[in-house]
Amino acid sequence: MTIETVSTNRAHGGVQGVYRHASAVTGTPMTFSVFVPDHAEGARLPVLWYLSGLTCTHANVTEKGEYRQACAEQGVIFIAPDTSPRGEDVPDDDAYDFGKGAGFYVDATQEPWATHYRMRSYVEDELPALILREFAMADLSRQGITGHSMGGHGALTIGLRNPDRFRSVSAFAPIAAPLHCPWGEKALSGYLGDNREDWRPYDACALIADGNRVAELLVDVGDADPFLTDQLKPELLAEACREAGIDLTLRMQPGYDHSYYFISTFMADHVAWHGRRLKA
Amino acid sequence: MTIETVSTNRAHGGVQGVYRHASAVTGTPMTFSVFVPDHAEGARLPVLWYLSGLTCTHANVTEKGEYRQACAEQGVIFIAPDTSPRGEDVPDDDAYDFGKGAGFYVDATQEPWATHYRMRSYVEDELPALILREFAMADLSRQGITGHSMGGHGALTIGLRNPDRFRSVSAFAPIAAPLHCPWGEKALSGYLGDNREDWRPYDACALIADGNRVAELLVDVGDADPFLTDQLKPELLAEACREAGIDLTLRMQPGYDHSYYFISTFMADHVAWHGRRLKA
Repeated sequence: MTIETVSTNRAHGGVQGVYRHASAVTGTPMTFSVFVPDHAEGARLPVLWYLSGLTCTHANVTEKGEYRQACAEQGVIFIAPDTSPRGEDVPDDDAYDFGKGAGFYVDATQEPWATHYRMRSYVEDELPALILREFAMADLSRQGITGHSMGGHGALTIGLRNPDRFRSVSAFAPIAAPLHCPWGEKALSGYLGDNREDWRPYDACALIADGNRVAELLVDVGDADPFLTDQLKPELLAEACREAGIDLTLRMQPGYDHSYYFISTFMADHVAWHGRRLKA
Repeated sequence: MTIETVSTNRAHGGVQGVYRHASAVTGTPMTFSVFVPDHAEGARLPVLWYLSGLTCTHANVTEKGEYRQACAEQGVIFIAPDTSPRGEDVPDDDAYDFGKGAGFYVDATQEPWATHYRMRSYVEDELPALILREFAMADLSRQGITGHSMGGHGALTIGLRNPDRFRSVSAFAPIAAPLHCPWGEKALSGYLGDNREDWRPYDACALIADGNRVAELLVDVGDADPFLTDQLKPELLAEACREAGIDLTLRMQPGYDHSYYFISTFMADHVAWHGRRLKA
């Protein structure tokens, strides 16, 4: 497998790169970004994954996320995958919340989605293997994961399904219970079919109810987020964590909305929180 | 004069706003952004102006500039105007470096540009007067100015022409001598005509040679900037400052290019540098 360098830019003492490769899992070219902080030759750095929300590509957080200064201070590599397969051959939907830009980090089982929409396997397996091969300084024995909205859902569910792989899991305004909100019900029924039992591996609250565990979670949500009540439902995550004994730090941030102005405000906090756990 | 609020978002404890108004100077609607940090009621905060480069609007730095954390720490308001008049009635040019997005902070004298392309008067006079009226917390007795590339040229020339108005002047990769580079010669001849004497108020080095003075300047330039040799020519600014006794701090940043990855890396430095001078 080869990897193509789309761009590299020096930033905050490190290198912000954008890369493209032919994904065997999605059957498409896939683009992702990696920030590698300045580091001593031969040093190996922990990795923080960031999964993006609806309509986004790798570019949104790369341009607007304000993570590089904090990653440089913490010595943490930051990786941002795309949110779906792309290309003319990939089936799509007119809606912003299904199809391209809205892969929901699932392996689809329903046609016409099943062939390309395999973002779970892409993010969990193929991309980490590629990183291991291509980025010698990335220490995959020390990984954390975070994300925003649909990507917060992705971070929570991937973290809960793989507690041995991720030392730290956080989220910004995650879709906390896809089984119980319009975005989730639409996406999971579309990609996985009507049997709601098949959806449970893709719902943080259901995973916790089914016995999956992480030690702790950090979640920030803006109390002026327009999606708070109908789509995000952090109170369901709080309840699930309380019942399961998971140490959830849920911060309702006053006046903040769902935008990158919210994310960038608390990004340095999250990077430092992950950094402490990844370097402990 | 009325001002329309396009958007406001809570960010880094303050408010990032985007506003539109009908400019009497340009004869068009003009859009600009303002970040107001959290502050005590009745407090008045110094103002840092940021002028953007070719092809940009207010949005580029607002999304990618990474200034809000530093402005919140320093208690400095950050204002980003557009780079030219906009609209269907405004004459344009197919090139990226002339016409819309390329106002060069001049008052044009040549047709068809003279009617709308009056960015000098807009940035020097009309917009500050609007800010004074509409933003009660803005203390215009304490102003600093900075900018990038064409906007660095704008910051240097506006600062040099108005030393009593601006306590602090800095720039990122400025066009240091428009009389002696292709971007400058094209823009100034197009907007001002062929008499190069008329260009001198719009050239930092010529202004210094003609006796304009500021106490000090801070300038960062990437040594991997592809425009360094042909367009930016910081060595001409260094020579002009040396001859005039202006305390120029010119930092050639190794490996950095002309992008917002460069700007955002050193933005916090510039905001803190201005903050110290604006609050002294």
